[in-house]
Amino acid sequence: MEDYLQNASHKRFNILTEEWVLVSPHRTKRPWQGQEEELSTSKRPSYDPNCYLCAGNKRANGEVNPNYEDVFIFKNDFAALTHGKENYKTDHKLIKAETETGICKVVCFSPDHSKSLAQMSIREIEKVINAWQREYKNLGKKDSINYVQIFENKGEVMGCSNPHPHGQIWSQSSLPNEVLKKDRSQFNYFSEESSSLLEDYLKQEIKLKKRIIFENEAFVVLIPFWAIWPYETMIIPKAHQTDICKIPVAETVLFAEAISVITKVYDKLFNCSFPYSSGIHQSPTDKANNEHWHWHMSFYPPLLRSATVKKFMVGYEMFASPQRDITAEAAAESLRYLL
Amino acid sequence: MEDYLQNASHKRFNILTEEWVLVSPHRTKRPWQGQEEELSTSKRPSYDPNCYLCAGNKRANGEVNPNYEDVFIFKNDFAALTHGKENYKTDHKLIKAETETGICKVVCFSPDHSKSLAQMSIREIEKVINAWQREYKNLGKKDSINYVQIFENKGEVMGCSNPHPHGQIWSQSSLPNEVLKKDRSQFNYFSEESSSLLEDYLKQEIKLKKRIIFENEAFVVLIPFWAIWPYETMIIPKAHQTDICKIPVAETVLFAEAISVITKVYDKLFNCSFPYSSGIHQSPTDKANNEHWHWHMSFYPPLLRSATVKKFMVGYEMFASPQRDITAEAAAESLRYLL
Ligand SMILES: O=P(O)(O)O[C@H]1O[C@H](CO)[C@@H](O)[C@H](O)[C@H]1O
Ligand SMILES: O=P(O)(O)O[C@H]1O[C@H](CO)[C@@H](O)[C@H](O)[C@H]1O
Repeated sequence: MEDYLQNASHKRFNILTEEWVLVSPHRTKRPWQGQEEELSTSKRPSYDPNCYLCAGNKRANGEVNPNYEDVFIFKNDFAALTHGKENYKTDHKLIKAETETGICKVVCFSPDHSKSLAQMSIREIEKVINAWQREYKNLGKKDSINYVQIFENKGEVMGCSNPHPHGQIWSQSSLPNEVLKKDRSQFNYFSEESSSLLEDYLKQEIKLKKRIIFENEAFVVLIPFWAIWPYETMIIPKAHQTDICKIPVAETVLFAEAISVITKVYDKLFNCSFPYSSGIHQSPTDKANNEHWHWHMSFYPPLLRSATVKKFMVGYEMFASPQRDITAEAAAESLRYLL
Repeated sequence: MEDYLQNASHKRFNILTEEWVLVSPHRTKRPWQGQEEELSTSKRPSYDPNCYLCAGNKRANGEVNPNYEDVFIFKNDFAALTHGKENYKTDHKLIKAETETGICKVVCFSPDHSKSLAQMSIREIEKVINAWQREYKNLGKKDSINYVQIFENKGEVMGCSNPHPHGQIWSQSSLPNEVLKKDRSQFNYFSEESSSLLEDYLKQEIKLKKRIIFENEAFVVLIPFWAIWPYETMIIPKAHQTDICKIPVAETVLFAEAISVITKVYDKLFNCSFPYSSGIHQSPTDKANNEHWHWHMSFYPPLLRSATVKKFMVGYEMFASPQRDITAEAAAESLRYLL
């Protein structure tokens, strides 16, 4: 088996989204003459008077940030989701639109403008996790919020317009596409097997050891078998937990450790502040029975060959299916080596 | 209705993929301090001695390109899909992989290095269409090829590493994700309504006129109601045709005209050689009954505000659902104005 998967074009199945990825291991030898990203190497100061996320500074809407000491959260001044009571629906079956309302927030991870999660202490990362838990719980309590998406865009190449360490939370009334897919697959598996899809998957991975980068008592960091992005990883709790509020208090530090380890390894890979989008997929907050959910955090980093050459998800990927060159196993080996 | 859709956050349904897009019309006012693309303004020569696609030049594998006069097609020297008889399948239900074989080709649109489709004559574009038809037919005839994806990545920002006007064809043994989705939706509609999904959709759009950019006797160019990319467009034949080989010979010129019109308008929008990925979705070549397919060509251009500021499909988009700021109606108006 392993030989085949390292040498010939094949497709792999994502058990969570139930979609395929095309893998072309032989294609890494392709020369690259295309676009290269700019590499920002300048060291940032701990405080930037022009940054709208630094403590004490003024934001676009005139509000002044407090002198926060760890995490600071505020409502997005340019929210993509507006909050209201509207209830609109078009009535044509081929031209179909519906109201979508929600609340968008910005989560500053640290007052220190120069840091990213990789440079923060485990204790500091724990405070970010605690903030995510509080937001998930409080937003999720609202009748109008049925799903809470926690995510981070890191680096200019990921559309992040401010290098101050921060993430976002977009919470909304309906379940978005990716969540619907994972809801379905996990529900079906749980109904049939009476165990969580990711718990059973983890058992396999722990046995095979090929794609695991790091583990502690409560968490595994691995490259999923079906990874799309070259160095895509996932943090999965070993125990079946529906959402991040189910992490036993004593284990938050272990989740923080997992985040710290993977972000540090990423920065080492190409010796740069590694760009990525990360996100947590977890149980909807729609008050349905969501026992089948097993929360997880994923990192989707675009870099492929170096700090400046990324993988482009374009023509074939947009019209047919995602495609990758290096295999998940080879990528895991490279990252593990840097631990 | 229209007022609501132009002002409040809502979601729209893609009748082909059966997925939603989040629309936030109020969000265009957001300032942008993030990454800007480099603008290449240098005029290219008609012949570049270092281009591996120009006539008479040597390619990476040592082969020499013929002195072609219009379209030139060759097998991709770094194909993502390899052709063989292997038949491999993992046997674990959570770690699922399968052989995927295929043939990848490169299609040079013109020997003139300086051109793009927008600068080519309608007669020249017709020759490209004829080449696509031949390839679709010949590749599709093979037992091992069940789907033929024709696409183009244009511009550095779309991962294109050579500005010589060219596209690609990746043909393969199984139906990729996006094609499976559109196969299902069109099949269901056709079974229920005995008419093609896109034919009926077109009738609505022709009545409403809000999203149409251009039409001639045989084709409509429009921004679909569910467009994801800011200036995404679709070319749809008015008649129900399963694939591009069904275009009546006398109407190829009208398809060429549609391509010419939209690519010229694109270049005018931000006064630059407009980047995009385009692709044709059409009937699989699996010899099944594919009467429900209605072929169409889509353009996915990334630019949002100017020649250098693109829309980033990142965190929320990757983890939840695509999101757009300007509405399809506003975008259609801007493009129509440039006709
Ligand atoms: O085949 P090319 O032009 O070298 O490569 C480009 O298009 C391919 C198909 O969309 C992508 O997989 C690559 O990431 C992109 O750089
Ligand atoms: O909200 P921001 O950081 O201004 O914007 C960034 O993240 C959003 C959510 O993924 C995207 O919709 C934007 O395209 C991106 O630039």
